[in-house]
Amino acid sequence: MNDLDEAPPKFDAAFQDKLEHLIVWRRDVRRFRTDPVDPELVHKLLALADHAPSVGNSQPWRFVLVENAEKREGVRALFEKANNEALADYEGGKAALYARLKLAGLKEAPVHLAVFTDIETAQGSGLGRRTMPETLDYSAVTAVYTLWLAARAWDLGVGWVSIIDPVEVRTLLEVPACWHLVAYLCIGYPQEEHLDPELERRGWQARTDFDKRVTIL
Amino acid sequence: MNDLDEAPPKFDAAFQDKLEHLIVWRRDVRRFRTDPVDPELVHKLLALADHAPSVGNSQPWRFVLVENAEKREGVRALFEKANNEALADYEGGKAALYARLKLAGLKEAPVHLAVFTDIETAQGSGLGRRTMPETLDYSAVTAVYTLWLAARAWDLGVGWVSIIDPVEVRTLLEVPACWHLVAYLCIGYPQEEHLDPELERRGWQARTDFDKRVTIL
Repeated sequence: MNDLDEAPPKFDAAFQDKLEHLIVWRRDVRRFRTDPVDPELVHKLLALADHAPSVGNSQPWRFVLVENAEKREGVRALFEKANNEALADYEGGKAALYARLKLAGLKEAPVHLAVFTDIETAQGSGLGRRTMPETLDYSAVTAVYTLWLAARAWDLGVGWVSIIDPVEVRTLLEVPACWHLVAYLCIGYPQEEHLDPELERRGWQARTDFDKRVTIL
Repeated sequence: MNDLDEAPPKFDAAFQDKLEHLIVWRRDVRRFRTDPVDPELVHKLLALADHAPSVGNSQPWRFVLVENAEKREGVRALFEKANNEALADYEGGKAALYARLKLAGLKEAPVHLAVFTDIETAQGSGLGRRTMPETLDYSAVTAVYTLWLAARAWDLGVGWVSIIDPVEVRTLLEVPACWHLVAYLCIGYPQEEHLDPELERRGWQARTDFDKRVTIL
């Protein structure tokens, strides 16, 4: 597939239709089955994510598979702390609803993946990030989302945990100080499949009308 | 396709294979044909991008299609300025190489799309972004990348212009001050298709070995 002599692919209507289904059926998963994921499949997904776009071809993403039980438990504790602090921001019915939401599957998910940006990488020689240095992080985000979509196509679910202090995660995992946490991901087989986001189903936030987000100038 | 009663899709090996091709053949395009893109196709791609993941289901992306000739010319001038300033950062052979790179297709691309994040959006009630407020921007990045992949499946190319001052673009386009520019995109039919990135082909930066970006902890 990576042969430079290969002809460019053609994408037909059947593929386009399936791709639409992939995009609209991708969910942020928090309810995982505990059965393991084949490490070769995980490696394959990471290798695909490595084909994400990156500013100046810098490939700044750094993938850390967290298998160590103590580290995983540490991450879970950091999530619990941040989640309790977040709960304190809400009042009344909204607080009660927040408390009932399941916002991470850190205990059940067989695969934990931390994704960092190496903000000091020399690769790319700085091209494209002089006025928008944040594009390094954005590159890592596209790697996360590549993995997310591919995972869905292989029947896996991904949940993005952002209710966590990124510096505390970096410290816990003992990675270099120049690595910036972009995402902490739970990966595993989902217990259920839905077309609507869980936050919509549970009454936190429904999708809103698309057209109001488009302006023609 | 958006019927909640519909059964979850199954993705077979043929689709997985095509998806891999889509991911590895997506390029950052700077050489566009000038023939127009059907506005209905553009709208379809934006509607698909609207299905990207978003923190707290906040859907913070704001799409601005820039059709006005003066505004487009203004964006091009901002790019030229930033690009000249960037060139001044390099010396010798690297500067000569940088000067020869084609880093945007703003003149030729029939569609210009600015993607902003509304950093003050109330949608989502702040869920998930207390410790990582940058996830609002990250959500907009996944919308950009959804559009990018879908565009490729419909034979279109996308080029992300990051060599530009995001505040100057916001000012030029006269959008609300709480809108943060995440990406300025050129969209159109590409003149050529390649498996290797243009920055690699032109000798600026090759891809590097994937395995060094993976750590198992």
